[in-house]
Amino acid sequence: MAIALITLAAGQGTRMNSDLPKVLHQVGRAPLVAHALAAGRALEPETVIVVAGHGADQVKKAVSKIDPEAQIVLQEEQLGTGHAVAQALPLLDGFDGRVIVLYGDTPFIRPETLERLAESDAAVTVLGFEAADPGRYGRLVALGNALERIVEFKDATDEERAIKLCNSGVIACDAILLTELVAGLSNDNAAGEYYLTDIVAAARARGLTAEVVTCEEAETLGINTRAELARAEALFQERMRAEAQDNGVTMVDPATVWFALDTYIGRDVVIGPNVVFGPGVTIESGAAIEAFCHLEGCHISRGATVGPFARLRPGAELAEDVHIGNFVEVKNSILAEGVKVGHLTYLGDADIGEHTNIGAGTVTCNYDGVMKHRTTIGANAFIGSDTMLVAPVTVGDGALTGSGSVITKDVPAEAIAIERAEQVTRPGLAKKLFAKLRAEKARRMKKD
Amino acid sequence: MAIALITLAAGQGTRMNSDLPKVLHQVGRAPLVAHALAAGRALEPETVIVVAGHGADQVKKAVSKIDPEAQIVLQEEQLGTGHAVAQALPLLDGFDGRVIVLYGDTPFIRPETLERLAESDAAVTVLGFEAADPGRYGRLVALGNALERIVEFKDATDEERAIKLCNSGVIACDAILLTELVAGLSNDNAAGEYYLTDIVAAARARGLTAEVVTCEEAETLGINTRAELARAEALFQERMRAEAQDNGVTMVDPATVWFALDTYIGRDVVIGPNVVFGPGVTIESGAAIEAFCHLEGCHISRGATVGPFARLRPGAELAEDVHIGNFVEVKNSILAEGVKVGHLTYLGDADIGEHTNIGAGTVTCNYDGVMKHRTTIGANAFIGSDTMLVAPVTVGDGALTGSGSVITKDVPAEAIAIERAEQVTRPGLAKKLFAKLRAEKARRMKKD
Amino acid sequence: MAIALITLAAGQGTRMNSDLPKVLHQVGRAPLVAHALAAGRALEPETVIVVAGHGADQVKKAVSKIDPEAQIVLQEEQLGTGHAVAQALPLLDGFDGRVIVLYGDTPFIRPETLERLAESDAAVTVLGFEAADPGRYGRLVALGNALERIVEFKDATDEERAIKLCNSGVIACDAILLTELVAGLSNDNAAGEYYLTDIVAAARARGLTAEVVTCEEAETLGINTRAELARAEALFQERMRAEAQDNGVTMVDPATVWFALDTYIGRDVVIGPNVVFGPGVTIESGAAIEAFCHLEGCHISRGATVGPFARLRPGAELAEDVHIGNFVEVKNSILAEGVKVGHLTYLGDADIGEHTNIGAGTVTCNYDGVMKHRTTIGANAFIGSDTMLVAPVTVGDGALTGSGSVITKDVPAEAIAIERAEQVTRPGLAKKLFAKLRAEKARRMKKD
Repeated sequence: MAIALITLAAGQGTRMNSDLPKVLHQVGRAPLVAHALAAGRALEPETVIVVAGHGADQVKKAVSKIDPEAQIVLQEEQLGTGHAVAQALPLLDGFDGRVIVLYGDTPFIRPETLERLAESDAAVTVLGFEAADPGRYGRLVALGNALERIVEFKDATDEERAIKLCNSGVIACDAILLTELVAGLSNDNAAGEYYLTDIVAAARARGLTAEVVTCEEAETLGINTRAELARAEALFQERMRAEAQDNGVTMVDPATVWFALDTYIGRDVVIGPNVVFGPGVTIESGAAIEAFCHLEGCHISRGATVGPFARLRPGAELAEDVHIGNFVEVKNSILAEGVKVGHLTYLGDADIGEHTNIGAGTVTCNYDGVMKHRTTIGANAFIGSDTMLVAPVTVGDGALTGSGSVITKDVPAEAIAIERAEQVTRPGLAKKLFAKLRAEKARRMKKD
Repeated sequence: MAIALITLAAGQGTRMNSDLPKVLHQVGRAPLVAHALAAGRALEPETVIVVAGHGADQVKKAVSKIDPEAQIVLQEEQLGTGHAVAQALPLLDGFDGRVIVLYGDTPFIRPETLERLAESDAAVTVLGFEAADPGRYGRLVALGNALERIVEFKDATDEERAIKLCNSGVIACDAILLTELVAGLSNDNAAGEYYLTDIVAAARARGLTAEVVTCEEAETLGINTRAELARAEALFQERMRAEAQDNGVTMVDPATVWFALDTYIGRDVVIGPNVVFGPGVTIESGAAIEAFCHLEGCHISRGATVGPFARLRPGAELAEDVHIGNFVEVKNSILAEGVKVGHLTYLGDADIGEHTNIGAGTVTCNYDGVMKHRTTIGANAFIGSDTMLVAPVTVGDGALTGSGSVITKDVPAEAIAIERAEQVTRPGLAKKLFAKLRAEKARRMKKD
Repeated sequence: MAIALITLAAGQGTRMNSDLPKVLHQVGRAPLVAHALAAGRALEPETVIVVAGHGADQVKKAVSKIDPEAQIVLQEEQLGTGHAVAQALPLLDGFDGRVIVLYGDTPFIRPETLERLAESDAAVTVLGFEAADPGRYGRLVALGNALERIVEFKDATDEERAIKLCNSGVIACDAILLTELVAGLSNDNAAGEYYLTDIVAAARARGLTAEVVTCEEAETLGINTRAELARAEALFQERMRAEAQDNGVTMVDPATVWFALDTYIGRDVVIGPNVVFGPGVTIESGAAIEAFCHLEGCHISRGATVGPFARLRPGAELAEDVHIGNFVEVKNSILAEGVKVGHLTYLGDADIGEHTNIGAGTVTCNYDGVMKHRTTIGANAFIGSDTMLVAPVTVGDGALTGSGSVITKDVPAEAIAIERAEQVTRPGLAKKLFAKLRAEKARRMKKD
């Protein structure tokens, strides 16, 4: 059956105490709404609609990056979930499938759960969960899967309050029926809001069936404060770490490895304490990541060793057996097999051939103050310590640059290029200089 | 009412297994005694006295920094808390207010609690707490707030041992009365010590009233071992983190952000994993601190981005939208709006104008072996990679320095300054050199 | 009594999902089998035998490093623990002492426990433990220490299943008897394997005594998955941290300090958050290790300060009061008293005299592409920022090198050595250059 998703993302999230719209706060280095959209996209929906409100411009911009085909509608005033859905329905005109309404601040919902909502053949299907502590959640009065009605906590009898099956707010409904039911919603309640939840009663009143589909409570976790955001992040990380362990990854201290939503790590990779993965990292089997590494948008091949204290930025591609040592940054650079970059180096916008050795303190001077340029180094080259490679510049295969050289002109293969003055030694002068400086210091201190 | 504080800080802390006096061990990067003094200072006392004993010279030196107006008295022998207070009383001659006695190794006591002790109108007021596990604490036998007596655990009946209200040791008393009562203390007990606690019985024997003021058990937490010190640190950090979250700070993993006692972080600041704050850090709203940063004594303005792997030391002041990248250290330097320092740089004792770009590998050579000197760089300047700025030196607005230059002379605005030899290329020489080196190596290995 | 150890290390560890043999996975930076061997070696056994199987070559290589006197035997097919022991027995021909059989994947067994097994005078002695949750462990049916029999879980009656005393698999037996009993083992069971455990019944059938020696459950912890490996690591770290605290070490956040098996830290050392110890680190009393340090194979003397962001590699030896600052790497170098290395430096294969100051950005160019060479610097020298020391090279006492110099020739004591061109200043040229670059950029963007 054709599916459409409506993701509600208009809330301000007052308790976040933030200028950023709530759904743009991040878990696993991705906005909350990206998690919900990713789960929804797994169903291959025909249409994806995001209802934005607070910070709509920011939400629109973010969603257009996350899911370029998603449509954004604006809910100008926040008049309840029913009202939010009403803003989206005009975009579903003529759509004759199943609509799933989910939430931009509920990142853990699983595709399998949405699948079951989509496949339910009741007129209206509600996602419920058994709450460990049901507290003030709305309760689902059901006989087996047949949903009788939803009772708000404040209206519930003691008997109803004893029910543990709670309402997650996620709802699926046939599109045409949904349009009718939403049109009939009333805001005649204490808050003066239109509640999407009320469509269950409306459907039942028409003699239609309603159903409950259940999921784990953790899937329905919503986020309202920074502390809850931190807990969601912790939960996300816990899952990613367990999954990596199952896949044969060793982490010396799993609690100090932070994954992004799309991190991929192969079998027998060993990861030291304190490694941060930004988006877009893939690591092949058998690579080693030492402690204190910060990796983002990079690919690390089999047998490569990285860190400690290494930073790989987007576009860093390390072939097999590359070694990146400490205090080294690599950005938008391709390092061929066996390249070694041991210490204190910045490689940006560079291509480096097989088995080349990059000395300590090397910098690719890729920026001239206005534009960026590329550095190309061949195979088996030897870049001496503290070489400045002023891009655009090329160093050939097997060439060598002298320590401390500023290389502004291309270096042919197998050549040596040096930029250096003569070393001048002045006997006894250090002694005199320090004596003079000490006298000067004494003079100044006296003066003060 | 006028208030005087006596802080007992003479103990050795044998179980710390340390040469450092116990009260100088740190929580939140501040000595334990600084926490107690800070809580006490909030009451604006007329007089603050610290009783030192073990390591008195070190304690004196530390206290004079923390609270220059505090007076230090020496307790030469450790003959009990009553004896300690007796050493302080001569400094209160003529003082007709309320004295509060607190402890240098009890860092979590809150000003509000001390306030209530100060305001109590009983002759003697004792701070008590309901202990989860009362163990061997002294028990407070009380009727409501009226304190009957204090019973040591070893002297307590089963009925008294069932009491959960325990003695924290913190006491408030009118100054003149305190002097009389302390003078009357006896050391006729197993330990041969003078117990301050005994003044309650003495006051009651005179027919005077005694009162209990209560606080949370956590406030009375004392520290006797390194493990307890670590737990106190953890408790302190937990509070600081929760407070930051309430103020609208996002921490990806709060458990890996370490605060100092005086850290201030604005709303919507995002902090990556593994950030350490030393004393004296303020961060304005909306700045971003990446993973692996070490910040101390610095100010970071709105929109600035710092890290990963950045170190800001005392006197680093970052204006709006400054960017500090990886493996960068900044000390005692003022960076104007929009300055960028991307990689592998040391800036010490420098002033840098708006929108200036500092290339990778730049160093302010601020030390000549005897004295430190300042570097001044104008606005919109471009400091090429690996520039050595030999201070004192000035680079003007819009000027450029060539990569790898050692700048010893001032550079006028809009000028280019370069210190560089000619690049010399020797074709084929690298091939010959490596062949020679390999032969030499083979020869040496054969020889061994 | 003479003792022989047989360590079973042949398992594949399928659930590790790894190409590495299970016993070579690490805890505390040492292979699991190294922990078991270390515990066994404490008994000063006459013979140590390791039975290898899966990945035997790798295991052999690793064991020969860990314990060069251990003998390795190959179990070609994995036919059970009894079969594994049978492979080792030929090496004990003529040995008339006590044999202890332990496991390469059980790293926490204590020497004291093995001692008690060795000292037991029963014919066969089995190591048992009271399991918190006995689950599917085999049960030890015993009267006091007298072991009646071992019952596999699946064969156990309800009454037997209620027993909490479980079989660890570790067994001690007189050598000659063991040979006889193992020879009599049968593989007539569901798995078709020879179980070492069956020797207990065989001994009892001969009318011989069997005994139970018990230990803490934690000592018997075996490792079968990456998650269990991580938990074992956590347990190991917890013990090391507690021990360090008892010895008078302060860790700001103990959970973020990672020890190796042989880390030694003196009294009153203060360690910041996030410090990783690799093998072979010793730190004397009163040194300070700041946050974000990575230390391996190094010695740090009294009063030295290291970090933040420092890396010490094997062979780094720091004398008293040495200071190593941020983004500094030291390898195979000896630093005399009071040497200061503040920032962004690589010292490899160097000897540095007392009170010498190493400027920011200094590199010992120790590798010429083929061989490594040594750098020698005297006392009270001043190495200017960004000095390249092209080894082999010597700088004398009290000498100074100019900033940005490449030092290829020895520098005599008290001399100044500079390698530098003239600074050339071109007024107004930066303005023209940037104008030109901006025009070029605009032209390119137009073209695209």
